[in-house]
Amino acid sequence: MDRAVPASDEGLAKGRIEALCDGVFAIAMTLMIFNVKVPQIPTELAPAKLANEVYDLWPQFLVYAISFVMLGIYWVGHHNQYHYIRCTDRWLLWINVAFLFFVTLIPFSTALLGRYPAQQIAVVVYASNLIIVGILLLIHWRYATSQPGLVDSDLNPVLVRQASRRILLAPILLTFAVVFSFVSTIISLVLCAVIPVLYVLPRRIDRHWRLTHSMNRQKGEAS
Amino acid sequence: MDRAVPASDEGLAKGRIEALCDGVFAIAMTLMIFNVKVPQIPTELAPAKLANEVYDLWPQFLVYAISFVMLGIYWVGHHNQYHYIRCTDRWLLWINVAFLFFVTLIPFSTALLGRYPAQQIAVVVYASNLIIVGILLLIHWRYATSQPGLVDSDLNPVLVRQASRRILLAPILLTFAVVFSFVSTIISLVLCAVIPVLYVLPRRIDRHWRLTHSMNRQKGEAS
Amino acid sequence: MDRAVPASDEGLAKGRIEALCDGVFAIAMTLMIFNVKVPQIPTELAPAKLANEVYDLWPQFLVYAISFVMLGIYWVGHHNQYHYIRCTDRWLLWINVAFLFFVTLIPFSTALLGRYPAQQIAVVVYASNLIIVGILLLIHWRYATSQPGLVDSDLNPVLVRQASRRILLAPILLTFAVVFSFVSTIISLVLCAVIPVLYVLPRRIDRHWRLTHSMNRQKGEAS
Amino acid sequence: MDRAVPASDEGLAKGRIEALCDGVFAIAMTLMIFNVKVPQIPTELAPAKLANEVYDLWPQFLVYAISFVMLGIYWVGHHNQYHYIRCTDRWLLWINVAFLFFVTLIPFSTALLGRYPAQQIAVVVYASNLIIVGILLLIHWRYATSQPGLVDSDLNPVLVRQASRRILLAPILLTFAVVFSFVSTIISLVLCAVIPVLYVLPRRIDRHWRLTHSMNRQKGEAS
Repeated sequence: MDRAVPASDEGLAKGRIEALCDGVFAIAMTLMIFNVKVPQIPTELAPAKLANEVYDLWPQFLVYAISFVMLGIYWVGHHNQYHYIRCTDRWLLWINVAFLFFVTLIPFSTALLGRYPAQQIAVVVYASNLIIVGILLLIHWRYATSQPGLVDSDLNPVLVRQASRRILLAPILLTFAVVFSFVSTIISLVLCAVIPVLYVLPRRIDRHWRLTHSMNRQKGEAS
Repeated sequence: MDRAVPASDEGLAKGRIEALCDGVFAIAMTLMIFNVKVPQIPTELAPAKLANEVYDLWPQFLVYAISFVMLGIYWVGHHNQYHYIRCTDRWLLWINVAFLFFVTLIPFSTALLGRYPAQQIAVVVYASNLIIVGILLLIHWRYATSQPGLVDSDLNPVLVRQASRRILLAPILLTFAVVFSFVSTIISLVLCAVIPVLYVLPRRIDRHWRLTHSMNRQKGEAS
Repeated sequence: MDRAVPASDEGLAKGRIEALCDGVFAIAMTLMIFNVKVPQIPTELAPAKLANEVYDLWPQFLVYAISFVMLGIYWVGHHNQYHYIRCTDRWLLWINVAFLFFVTLIPFSTALLGRYPAQQIAVVVYASNLIIVGILLLIHWRYATSQPGLVDSDLNPVLVRQASRRILLAPILLTFAVVFSFVSTIISLVLCAVIPVLYVLPRRIDRHWRLTHSMNRQKGEAS
Repeated sequence: MDRAVPASDEGLAKGRIEALCDGVFAIAMTLMIFNVKVPQIPTELAPAKLANEVYDLWPQFLVYAISFVMLGIYWVGHHNQYHYIRCTDRWLLWINVAFLFFVTLIPFSTALLGRYPAQQIAVVVYASNLIIVGILLLIHWRYATSQPGLVDSDLNPVLVRQASRRILLAPILLTFAVVFSFVSTIISLVLCAVIPVLYVLPRRIDRHWRLTHSMNRQKGEAS
């Protein structure tokens, strides 16, 4: 396969960026839950109080679940980009480092919001963190597709634009969450909880990608 | 090898799902033990009391060992499925995310049960968590094998059914553990400890898989 | 390469066992240090006391360094075995799970010994943990080399025995450490600190392995 | 590809060293942030005080950001070396283990400096840790390029020297940070913050590497 040759030869092989990225996401996704602490009650009071204490952890689990799915979405988005990226350069590498940096902050923001779900500052920090990650993912995509040689030269421009729009969805809705937090943090939290659902549902771009994939495959078979 | 081509071309390459999955399992399995805390005793009292304090941690180590093996079982099960899965689609991806989400909750459930082994609520939370993971693994298998194109078209239906039954074993026994916890948490804990043993022993399906493997290999050599 | 075919076809592909193993070792090695806590002193007292408090952490760092190198040794040993193992079966898989289980306990033993370096119980727990890991590594090697089909059929029996003896070195010395702990924990700790040094130095087996490697390579080039 | 054959045949395959290394870096980079704790305030006081408490965490986030980028730099440096390294031997392996050991200490040093940014001892520990990691990276490079057979025999000596100089940049500047900490910790911290910026900017060596890459590629295509 001729296509694999430049990837391993120019700049940092994309395989190791993906490996570091997979590692950071796996750790961030798994470790967040360690911020949810097991209630500490004297054993003699446990029969009476433990069930309630566990039940009271539900806002933390909810925020954790939202963060987990958002990380999943960003991970899938990052991966999909690397489906088209052939090789990397120094700038793309550092965009990745910045992206991963803000990814690693998500466990902190999640713990803050889980502990203080009714405080505006917690909502703002949490939503801002997710916004920055989303925007860095967009910068990553725009940069990679604007540089000659980093992606396949025959990448469909419609796909590039649709992917950009899809990435932008979360930062835009999260900006609304920040704005509404000045009115009511409940509205903001509902918005945050709705975003994952929007992404999980299949959308127009999938049809497009599948089409491009089949075309690529046919091309590959033909050559 | 013709078989590898679609895997890297359609939807999310299965290699990266496996990488994320391996990462999450490795972290969850390694980190659980960090919930077992070293006893903190003033140094002058340590000679008299440390041995007892360490000894008293045994229920936590036992629960940890059960969870570790259960995670090992689910990891092997997930891996075995990907032996037959050729490529993934959006739904399979999100089933994976849900599966991994509940896998990351296991360290919390384990810490809860290790801290309160005699409390019914802890047993119920722990067993329910393992049940959900098992059922999501079953949904993963049923979905993948029911979609045309995600698995080899000549996958033996007997194997599909046997694997399903094998996956179901843990959720069914764990449901009994939940039911019996209303009578006695001891019975529930014994049931939880027995499940890993059942899975570790070789069973009929292994013979079947080995057979299929040999057949596949012969086919591969012939083609 | 004909040799790679059975590995991916029979039982659990060795690649994913190695991936899980690498993950568990990387996490255990990196996380141990999180048990060494930054001293918490009021800011106004920090100029006078912080340097001493940091200095007083040295036993913890020393124990951590020993554990880190021991984990490195066991990781290299495990890897070297997989250089010769062609494929896995159910029993080898579960030996691996048991091996990894006791590997994940090392951070706990390390924290215990770092906190109570003068207590016999801490020395015994620590050394026993390392002994069990070493013995499981030996069982792993003996099982793999005794089963037909798991390793290359022309594997030199001298190599098998030499590798076994090399693996046994640590458990034997650690058994002495356990025995001497009844006399003096200082002797035990010195013994523990010496073991890594013995392994780091090159030894006879390296010459043997290098020879086998060259022979294998020549064979590969010839075929 | 003839070049890949010795890598998997002699000593420890470089692929698994890279995997362990990627794992350790991913974990260290992601886990550091877990040392920044969510402020614990009674819920009724949160509206008045939480924003300030979160704001007061900024030195910790700043130190964390510096460490994250420094780890990124060292990770890239390590990776770039493995672009040229064909295979490993026992000494290179143990240089790697020492390198990774001091990498795993960075989260501790970071937490220490984040907690006591004005204390000289914290600055000295932090800078020394980064210096040792940098020097081990240099030793790694010098050793690998001085041994026959570990790197390509036609590796450009100019590239070897330029890479060495580039690696030395951080340890030299960090030594200044240690020296200046006797005068003012502010100067030291500014120096630490400047280093990542110097590395992120493209430099002469990049042009050189790109040239070598193209030449290698042409050579590869020609052969």
